[in-house]
Amino acid sequence: MNFTEKLAKISLKNRSLLCVGLDPDPALMPEKIGVFEFNKAIIDATADFVCAYKPNIAFYEAMGHEAVEALHETISYVPKEIPTIIDAKRGDIGNTAKAYARSLFDRFNADAITASPYLGYDSLEPFIERRDRGVFILCRTSNPGAADFQSLPVGEDKKLLYEVVAEKVNEWNKHGNLGLVVGATYPEELKLIRQRYPEILLLIPGVGAQGGELEQVVKYGTDKGRRRTVINSSRQIIFASRGKDFADAAAKAARELRDRINAFWR
Amino acid sequence: MNFTEKLAKISLKNRSLLCVGLDPDPALMPEKIGVFEFNKAIIDATADFVCAYKPNIAFYEAMGHEAVEALHETISYVPKEIPTIIDAKRGDIGNTAKAYARSLFDRFNADAITASPYLGYDSLEPFIERRDRGVFILCRTSNPGAADFQSLPVGEDKKLLYEVVAEKVNEWNKHGNLGLVVGATYPEELKLIRQRYPEILLLIPGVGAQGGELEQVVKYGTDKGRRRTVINSSRQIIFASRGKDFADAAAKAARELRDRINAFWR
Repeated sequence: MNFTEKLAKISLKNRSLLCVGLDPDPALMPEKIGVFEFNKAIIDATADFVCAYKPNIAFYEAMGHEAVEALHETISYVPKEIPTIIDAKRGDIGNTAKAYARSLFDRFNADAITASPYLGYDSLEPFIERRDRGVFILCRTSNPGAADFQSLPVGEDKKLLYEVVAEKVNEWNKHGNLGLVVGATYPEELKLIRQRYPEILLLIPGVGAQGGELEQVVKYGTDKGRRRTVINSSRQIIFASRGKDFADAAAKAARELRDRINAFWR
Repeated sequence: MNFTEKLAKISLKNRSLLCVGLDPDPALMPEKIGVFEFNKAIIDATADFVCAYKPNIAFYEAMGHEAVEALHETISYVPKEIPTIIDAKRGDIGNTAKAYARSLFDRFNADAITASPYLGYDSLEPFIERRDRGVFILCRTSNPGAADFQSLPVGEDKKLLYEVVAEKVNEWNKHGNLGLVVGATYPEELKLIRQRYPEILLLIPGVGAQGGELEQVVKYGTDKGRRRTVINSSRQIIFASRGKDFADAAAKAARELRDRINAFWR
């Protein structure tokens, strides 16, 4: 079963488009808890309400070897039916791109990853060619500086750069395993992308802490028939409480957000 | 002493614009040698002929924890006067960008890193604000797919995207610690960039194995007065021999390439 099928299956079973971002931050976690222990409790508490988990590898790398080991453990611990997306935003050339594909897909065993488009097709090919895995390519990100390059008008017909990226990724999507990252903070852009490419996978970060309006995100970012949209929330779920009840609070936050998404999804 | 000064000082002392890429590959290394042991021998053999070392972190990550530890050891082992550039091509937003900055600058203790521009200014700010460190931002890369996005004509005056990236990076270069990555395989683009921005740091990969023409690279990519150009070669140096003489062969290859670069540099 490939990534797209795995995602659709668990999304249907859990009635959920919600992805929980596993981005540990010792300053926001309960005291005296290890990274894996924290993630394990969050996974146990939320596994019935999600369609995917998305650890951002930067947080683990910043904490050093033990945290990177905890990421391995975390991915092994996630129930087999729930896909994991390592948010790595990698992009490099030739042999180096192959090395990243080995690292993320084989060593970490991620079902999907995020990648950066700037270096073009051959930098993405080692990921794309892993047909059973998913690849979400940065398109329109949710940060203030996104407009610096992504919103530049390009070429004769003045499409914006992010639109050209979406167009190219759609062309490259021969195996049906590609997706786009489009931030929740840009609902109009989300609408345009989803209308043009109803079949492509979409990963939408920026709901919650980053302020994306949920109703618009759901209406514009989903499609009716397919479960190919993943709406990510990290801090709002995993740091819902810093007390001993953090896992229960995460479960409650995940269930509520899942249900709010479903209420908007028609 | 900041990165730019450190680079200029060792470049003058070693009369070298050559950076050696420390990209270990067990299939090309001598048999039964560890990653750190290999790097150590290469560094011992080439330290008099280089202005910097550039490990690409992907190769270490692909080999797992022990290799990542070997990268730490390698960076500690490089003589203090020679700067290290971790080729990581990172780019992420907000807290995540800060996490990458901590990981690369504080945990690994790199003097400089490479980063990807697609997410815009705020994704680079945590790197840029480390005034003592260097940041090389991808501009025109040396791979075939680079043209997919980097060569798109942008805006009213039809500059190409990589030119706009260069322009922005130059604007952002308030602390004098920014550079551009421009592949050796595009000498005309290199010429244009160096002419427009004589003061900016340039990292030029793609000499040797990737086929860049050395004479043009040196003539177009350097400036007369300043030592702000770093010409990288990896495989041609470190895998010059796979036998017991690999370190001697690397020394010979590094010295020769340094001297060829100097012969073209007027």
